[in-house]
Amino acid sequence: ELVEAMLKARGPRSLDGLSVLVSAGPTYEDIDPVRFIGNRSSGRMGFAVAAAAVQAGARVRLVAGPVALATPAGVERIDVRSARQMRDAVVASAADSDIFISAAAVGDYRPQAVSPAKLKKSGKALALELVQNPDILAELAAQAAHPFLVGFAAETNDLEHYAREKLERKGLDLIAANRVGEELGFECSENALLLLWPGGREELGMAEKGVLAKALIERVATLHAAARGKRGRG
Amino acid sequence: ELVEAMLKARGPRSLDGLSVLVSAGPTYEDIDPVRFIGNRSSGRMGFAVAAAAVQAGARVRLVAGPVALATPAGVERIDVRSARQMRDAVVASAADSDIFISAAAVGDYRPQAVSPAKLKKSGKALALELVQNPDILAELAAQAAHPFLVGFAAETNDLEHYAREKLERKGLDLIAANRVGEELGFECSENALLLLWPGGREELGMAEKGVLAKALIERVATLHAAARGKRGRG
Repeated sequence: ELVEAMLKARGPRSLDGLSVLVSAGPTYEDIDPVRFIGNRSSGRMGFAVAAAAVQAGARVRLVAGPVALATPAGVERIDVRSARQMRDAVVASAADSDIFISAAAVGDYRPQAVSPAKLKKSGKALALELVQNPDILAELAAQAAHPFLVGFAAETNDLEHYAREKLERKGLDLIAANRVGEELGFECSENALLLLWPGGREELGMAEKGVLAKALIERVATLHAAARGKRGRG
Repeated sequence: ELVEAMLKARGPRSLDGLSVLVSAGPTYEDIDPVRFIGNRSSGRMGFAVAAAAVQAGARVRLVAGPVALATPAGVERIDVRSARQMRDAVVASAADSDIFISAAAVGDYRPQAVSPAKLKKSGKALALELVQNPDILAELAAQAAHPFLVGFAAETNDLEHYAREKLERKGLDLIAANRVGEELGFECSENALLLLWPGGREELGMAEKGVLAKALIERVATLHAAARGKRGRG
């Protein structure tokens, strides 16, 4: 009754009763026991999104690549290293989730083979054969029943063009695009986001990642409710 | 006078009056603005060696790759990212140093070209062309006048064989070899070291990196004093 009273006092929240799955951080692809291919994702945006989803009333599960960040309060965290481990963890949780927000910077490529022993210097140039990693969002989008899908696009150039193209090609419900490069996006705490969805756009100006995450979550809640309403009446 | 009295009370230390240069951590080689090739070095051993050298009375400069570690008290720190940046910082400081301890895991290879824009998925396999990075220790060893040279060898197999071969091929004064792989060496705080030098060896059993660093510094001091004595009388 106390909880009920508190909830009443606070009013309903935008994601009450919903289950949100978030991925965050980089993935690391081993070349041999000591070397790997990584990327500069700090994980901060994904962790901020998970925290904002909890604050909006959702049950939140966070699949995190190798980052040194504290788990936000109320979040269930699953740690992974490679893109394939992240794919497996996300797919296993997706069926129980209403919304999947893919904030991880999943490595597109991995070495074709992982050397069990440390590679020795050969004294000459070397070609590292890379193969593509699974595309987690595209795999989920292809399933008949799937969560509301939110992607991120980090681009160094032609931001809106590439992001809109990715939204459509992957069949996403929403994409959050940000510019990366010199001092922007990765490894810093401020950023700006451009939100794109079928038939709409919203610009979120330069702000702390926590502020951007809250605004993103509110947009997700609005679009998800509209989609559910349409299906419900459909 | 107070300082002099304190020094007298403590007695002379093994590296009093000497200048020690230490490198630590991994190097990261950019593939494009977001992707890079890295390695699992935590930097802990190098930082522990720098701290132990200060405690032994040396002036210490530390060239550190990308790690999230606090600078030990009394150490002058220079931060770098790539192998070539590390080479430049080390070579610039080597002329003023009596001893160089190369504890960094310098990446052997870097991409032949760094893409200024983020690489797009091509939909197929990819070969990443790699070229060798400069060999910092070999470059210093080739100079007529150079510091006392200490290297590290992290090996997954045939530890003593590879380490002794590296000691001789590079013309080092001492090498500290450790086994890496499953839960060993990188990203953990305990390890064991095998010290090899021309005509000698010493095994340092499993211990905290701080303990190993102190033992390594004592061996360095002994060998350096002997080498100096020989040259002095020579």
